[in-house]
Amino acid sequence: MSQSTKNANGDTKIVLVSYSQDEYEEIQIESASECARYVGKRDVTWIRILGKPNAELLINIGEQFGFHPLAIDDVINADQRPKVEQFDKYMFITVNIPQKPENSASIRLDQVCIFLGANFVVTINGSGNVFETIYQRIEEDRGRIRKMKADYLAYTLIDIAVDQYFPIIDFIETRIESIDEVLQGKPSPQIVREIRNIKRQLFLIRSSIWPMREVISYLQREEPLLITDASSLYFRDAYNHTIQIADMIESCRDILSEIFNMYLSMTANSTNEVMKVLTIFASIFIPLTFIVGIYGMNFKFMPELNWRPAYFIVHGIMVLVVLAMLRFFRKRGWF
Amino acid sequence: MSQSTKNANGDTKIVLVSYSQDEYEEIQIESASECARYVGKRDVTWIRILGKPNAELLINIGEQFGFHPLAIDDVINADQRPKVEQFDKYMFITVNIPQKPENSASIRLDQVCIFLGANFVVTINGSGNVFETIYQRIEEDRGRIRKMKADYLAYTLIDIAVDQYFPIIDFIETRIESIDEVLQGKPSPQIVREIRNIKRQLFLIRSSIWPMREVISYLQREEPLLITDASSLYFRDAYNHTIQIADMIESCRDILSEIFNMYLSMTANSTNEVMKVLTIFASIFIPLTFIVGIYGMNFKFMPELNWRPAYFIVHGIMVLVVLAMLRFFRKRGWF
Amino acid sequence: MSQSTKNANGDTKIVLVSYSQDEYEEIQIESASECARYVGKRDVTWIRILGKPNAELLINIGEQFGFHPLAIDDVINADQRPKVEQFDKYMFITVNIPQKPENSASIRLDQVCIFLGANFVVTINGSGNVFETIYQRIEEDRGRIRKMKADYLAYTLIDIAVDQYFPIIDFIETRIESIDEVLQGKPSPQIVREIRNIKRQLFLIRSSIWPMREVISYLQREEPLLITDASSLYFRDAYNHTIQIADMIESCRDILSEIFNMYLSMTANSTNEVMKVLTIFASIFIPLTFIVGIYGMNFKFMPELNWRPAYFIVHGIMVLVVLAMLRFFRKRGWF
Amino acid sequence: MSQSTKNANGDTKIVLVSYSQDEYEEIQIESASECARYVGKRDVTWIRILGKPNAELLINIGEQFGFHPLAIDDVINADQRPKVEQFDKYMFITVNIPQKPENSASIRLDQVCIFLGANFVVTINGSGNVFETIYQRIEEDRGRIRKMKADYLAYTLIDIAVDQYFPIIDFIETRIESIDEVLQGKPSPQIVREIRNIKRQLFLIRSSIWPMREVISYLQREEPLLITDASSLYFRDAYNHTIQIADMIESCRDILSEIFNMYLSMTANSTNEVMKVLTIFASIFIPLTFIVGIYGMNFKFMPELNWRPAYFIVHGIMVLVVLAMLRFFRKRGWF
Amino acid sequence: MSQSTKNANGDTKIVLVSYSQDEYEEIQIESASECARYVGKRDVTWIRILGKPNAELLINIGEQFGFHPLAIDDVINADQRPKVEQFDKYMFITVNIPQKPENSASIRLDQVCIFLGANFVVTINGSGNVFETIYQRIEEDRGRIRKMKADYLAYTLIDIAVDQYFPIIDFIETRIESIDEVLQGKPSPQIVREIRNIKRQLFLIRSSIWPMREVISYLQREEPLLITDASSLYFRDAYNHTIQIADMIESCRDILSEIFNMYLSMTANSTNEVMKVLTIFASIFIPLTFIVGIYGMNFKFMPELNWRPAYFIVHGIMVLVVLAMLRFFRKRGWF
Repeated sequence: MSQSTKNANGDTKIVLVSYSQDEYEEIQIESASECARYVGKRDVTWIRILGKPNAELLINIGEQFGFHPLAIDDVINADQRPKVEQFDKYMFITVNIPQKPENSASIRLDQVCIFLGANFVVTINGSGNVFETIYQRIEEDRGRIRKMKADYLAYTLIDIAVDQYFPIIDFIETRIESIDEVLQGKPSPQIVREIRNIKRQLFLIRSSIWPMREVISYLQREEPLLITDASSLYFRDAYNHTIQIADMIESCRDILSEIFNMYLSMTANSTNEVMKVLTIFASIFIPLTFIVGIYGMNFKFMPELNWRPAYFIVHGIMVLVVLAMLRFFRKRGWF
Repeated sequence: MSQSTKNANGDTKIVLVSYSQDEYEEIQIESASECARYVGKRDVTWIRILGKPNAELLINIGEQFGFHPLAIDDVINADQRPKVEQFDKYMFITVNIPQKPENSASIRLDQVCIFLGANFVVTINGSGNVFETIYQRIEEDRGRIRKMKADYLAYTLIDIAVDQYFPIIDFIETRIESIDEVLQGKPSPQIVREIRNIKRQLFLIRSSIWPMREVISYLQREEPLLITDASSLYFRDAYNHTIQIADMIESCRDILSEIFNMYLSMTANSTNEVMKVLTIFASIFIPLTFIVGIYGMNFKFMPELNWRPAYFIVHGIMVLVVLAMLRFFRKRGWF
Repeated sequence: MSQSTKNANGDTKIVLVSYSQDEYEEIQIESASECARYVGKRDVTWIRILGKPNAELLINIGEQFGFHPLAIDDVINADQRPKVEQFDKYMFITVNIPQKPENSASIRLDQVCIFLGANFVVTINGSGNVFETIYQRIEEDRGRIRKMKADYLAYTLIDIAVDQYFPIIDFIETRIESIDEVLQGKPSPQIVREIRNIKRQLFLIRSSIWPMREVISYLQREEPLLITDASSLYFRDAYNHTIQIADMIESCRDILSEIFNMYLSMTANSTNEVMKVLTIFASIFIPLTFIVGIYGMNFKFMPELNWRPAYFIVHGIMVLVVLAMLRFFRKRGWF
Repeated sequence: MSQSTKNANGDTKIVLVSYSQDEYEEIQIESASECARYVGKRDVTWIRILGKPNAELLINIGEQFGFHPLAIDDVINADQRPKVEQFDKYMFITVNIPQKPENSASIRLDQVCIFLGANFVVTINGSGNVFETIYQRIEEDRGRIRKMKADYLAYTLIDIAVDQYFPIIDFIETRIESIDEVLQGKPSPQIVREIRNIKRQLFLIRSSIWPMREVISYLQREEPLLITDASSLYFRDAYNHTIQIADMIESCRDILSEIFNMYLSMTANSTNEVMKVLTIFASIFIPLTFIVGIYGMNFKFMPELNWRPAYFIVHGIMVLVVLAMLRFFRKRGWF
Repeated sequence: MSQSTKNANGDTKIVLVSYSQDEYEEIQIESASECARYVGKRDVTWIRILGKPNAELLINIGEQFGFHPLAIDDVINADQRPKVEQFDKYMFITVNIPQKPENSASIRLDQVCIFLGANFVVTINGSGNVFETIYQRIEEDRGRIRKMKADYLAYTLIDIAVDQYFPIIDFIETRIESIDEVLQGKPSPQIVREIRNIKRQLFLIRSSIWPMREVISYLQREEPLLITDASSLYFRDAYNHTIQIADMIESCRDILSEIFNMYLSMTANSTNEVMKVLTIFASIFIPLTFIVGIYGMNFKFMPELNWRPAYFIVHGIMVLVVLAMLRFFRKRGWF
């Protein structure tokens, strides 16, 4: 036990928040084995396991609460797609929260695991502090959170997770917008790489929001044991947000495809333009060069050479050739 | 309260229309708190909140009618996709109305929120006056609207919202038509940008009509509490219109893709044509230039130079070369 | 009333066919108001409204038979997608019949509206005489039509409507076939426009056959009130035809896409070929021209110029250059 | 009747096989009217109508067995998609068997119609002798066929029909394989046509196997009247085969698309290569030709001309130009 | 019998593991006919048939256990897609295990057949030793396997089969990653072939994981006879893994398509660049060559030739031409 406690003091921290409509208590507990003792003292007990917990700690907690080993396995192997699993006395929910590091264009997904019981919520999230606002909301008794049960706390957590997707998509939309602007001018081939990068990010958050949608849909539609009617309405609201996010992602994908198509057609057009310039220059000057080449020949007998106006007549012929060529190209609409 | 009234006088206006088969009254009320008082006096009471209402006003109204805070939230954050939500004693419906400003090719979506109760309808719409016709229809007792309940009024509102899509699609079809005509001649690369713009507009109204279809389908198929059988038939009619709109949008998308493909293949063909012109010119004159180059050399010993007919024979050879090349290209079908 | 009668005499014609197994009567009635009188005298009464009826006439008939105003509206605004609507005592069915004018490659859709009651069928079709054969079949008591109820008459009408799609698809398949043949030779860019036109026609009849399929599926599967078991089998047969038509359309679309892809790749190949010809000519003669250019220089001191065999050696070098180039290109497989 | 008999003797042949566990009889009957007489004498009677039967014969048989006229119509108009139709006392099943003529790469579909009753099976198939093996299996009492009812005979027929798809797909896979090998070398544009042909064949058998899958799924899942539990397992097996065939077809389509994409990108690469060769040659020799052209001018006053080392210096400059150009192209990675 | 025993000793080996919570026995049996004798002695009997069994052996075992001949057929014809079939007293499950030979980039699928009864599991797998770990787990009583029934053993087998997909996908992802890196530099056309190969491998494992997903979904959702509630949770876990694998495959496919698109656009860009280089060189030097060609003509009367500064003026003109051309190209953004 001491080892897991040490770990809790080192990498991970266990914060326990328990509240009812009138009471509120927050303690940072030392040893994982104390967790279960607090549950039931007040209406709702929220056990927050912060930082990257080691397996031993999680197994310890799992045993106290009677969580299924498979669920604990899923917490340990954190790289799961969002899902919800109904057990007899509790639910196991995992959601993904997208994170964009301050000075980087990259996006990553953080997993949060939630165990929801009748009167407790256990959350395990490796990093980030997206839940700080809830923490304060409970402490200061803002909104309806203190009046509601544990399922509403779970809703609040999931709702905040969903809300994190909006700024990420805004960020992506801004990048798409800037690509689109670049396309108004002279796009460099680099743009294809940028399109590729954005597509991957869209794919990443899309692969995350779709199962989140299913998770929330399950919580709202099936109305499982632990979700009260009052909270169900709130889950419906969160569900609508996931649909909206999914729509926005599809819209971004559509626009990106359109941009790529535009870029391809611009490249084709550019090649076409380049070819026209070459063809016009070459087709005008190659015949002229031939003409002057004729009179550069050194034959002894070339009657024109001795004819005085010949030089000027050749110039005249060349002007005519140029005019004929220009007319030919203008008729073809090349300039 | 005085503040919300001030706002109502400033940015927003509350118009209250109440009617039964024989009676009709219309008043512009001063304070939001008076709204609920009028409901129930006649068969149907329609409370129109015009202009952009502030949150306080909406919360006030929400409390009077007992609307769920989440629904009021959705009204305040107006950027929602169309949806319908069934509550115990009322329904909350949001629909999108497409708008095209007079002198612009851009399209935007305006949201209208509708609360439908047993004997009242509350509508909140930020802008536009698409509902003026209903207003007059009630006053002048045209059609069946005075004989029907509140659900028929809701139908009328939604039906008019749906009808706004048709002229927008007509407008888009006209633009597609004009692109298609341009493609008959010499299309400029600008056409790709135009195709892109129309595709985005199609995407916008498509992302709006699909959830509207679901909303109306729900109202028609599920036959929820507040929708009478008589009105259900009318919703079925509106539903058919949404299907028709969705079909028209798909048709537009299909035609646009076809046009883009045509444009791409025209660019490829044009490049092909340009190349042929270049190749014909270059392949004819480059060999000729070589020939005349030979006799431009200054070698002391070049027997041909002193041969009298040589100059003319060279000309003959060059004519033969040209003829051979022309034959070669004609055989390949290049002109 | 007199006005509607006048219209009936002018633009539209009302023909009334009533029959039972043994009796048959056909009259052309003068006034729309007489219609309902005849219904019920024999087993089945078929009221054919031919030509483009005015709204007044249709409203008049609607009132006599108690048709819902929405259905009458749909008849007046003829541009509807095929649908079926079940009312208490009758069904309202609209189907589309494709028409190809004799000397034209264009296709249009004509709408036919059918009201099916227990002992009557009312058909409104603006143009065409596709139903003449049924007319005769009843008169001459061919097939089982005289032995069956009104629902079988409705089946016969719909079946004939479906059958009109087959020759249209045959016509389209012939055009596709001819494009395919052109592609064996030297296709002109015009072919893209032709592909586009056919795709639009396919889209048109596809947008019509899909809802027709749904209509007939409804009549066959749901077995609504007015459809007897005996007729249901026939509707199943018509349903299979719509599936077959949809399959044929998909097949055509697939083949057209394939043809377009082939055309694109042929264009790319052609450009490739053109480039090779240019490159071979230019790469052979440009170096030669350079060589002869060298000895065209007028430097006082150019030792080779005075060397007797130089001229011939230069020729030899040039032959070697040509052979080297030809070998280079042959190794690359360019000819 | 005599006429139909004559036809039976001419184009078509009626073979009647009746068997129970212990008995077996096979006769070739003269007149279609004798068919029904034999049914019921033993457990199962299999009436095989071979060759292309005329309508009269089929109507005659239809009347004896009480088959629905629509089913008989479907047999006469043989070009149907596979389907199953449940009637009161019998089922009507049509399946397609793919055929590849020995010395041809073309594929065609042959239709087989099966009527399955409680104690009889009637098969009508225009051509081919794929069922000969069953015929022998019954005669020699191999497998379980003699122990089972008529539904097992129907299963055996359908199973053999399904099995015919495997060699056809093998044949197509071989052709795809050979295209793929050609692509390793220098593909000719002809390859596009070959891809097109294979795609059409895949489309043909795909349009056939999908409804076959539905047919067998219906027989297996719905467990209709005439299918015993024992046979149902066998139909499940045949159903799995149709899924496997559909998978193989999709796989072929995928690979073909991939091959087409490869071909397109190879063409684009080839054009790119050709262009590089041209550009390198032209960009090196055109400047050189210009340089030698300068000293080919005939100006009286050109100081360099009289300068002795000038000729060699020009050669030096030209060498430098060539080296610079080569370096330029090498830096760009062109060779 | 002796023959099948000989085969068992030659190509195939039958290992029989029987265990209950406290007991464990493992024997290698000589003759297939002894198999059934051991079943029932302990809680679970696992009969492992290793190597490629001959048909006779399988039929023998099938008869002992009363397996349906169709299932035995499926074992013999090993090339099946994963499936599950419910029989009265047992289930027949086939799964595919992907294998990557050590020194090869190719992937193949090995089939494992599982018969699950109330107290026995029979596995037939041709090759590989992926199940060795289970074997040891039972022997050493690790995990919960000794405490559970036969269905848990079946789960363990299937779970290990599913787990084999992860390293394969990792391997594919690494290859995609390396292609992507190559694309950062100068990709060779060879890359298209590599993309094609990976796509085929993805297609192969995708065509395998989809039916595996269905199989496990059936075991988890339908909760068939032989699956206890306790095991059902574990199958749900395995099901989630299949979804994750399917997601990863889709992600790989998406990225590959993106890479192919990037490659195509890079080729188009490269051609565009090559063309620009050619056009710039040709357009600058061809006019210059023409100019010097003029004064290479040998006309007797060319006034400029005798004019002293002419030579230098021509040089000046040529410099101006070059500058004009460079400006022209710079304005077009070509360099």
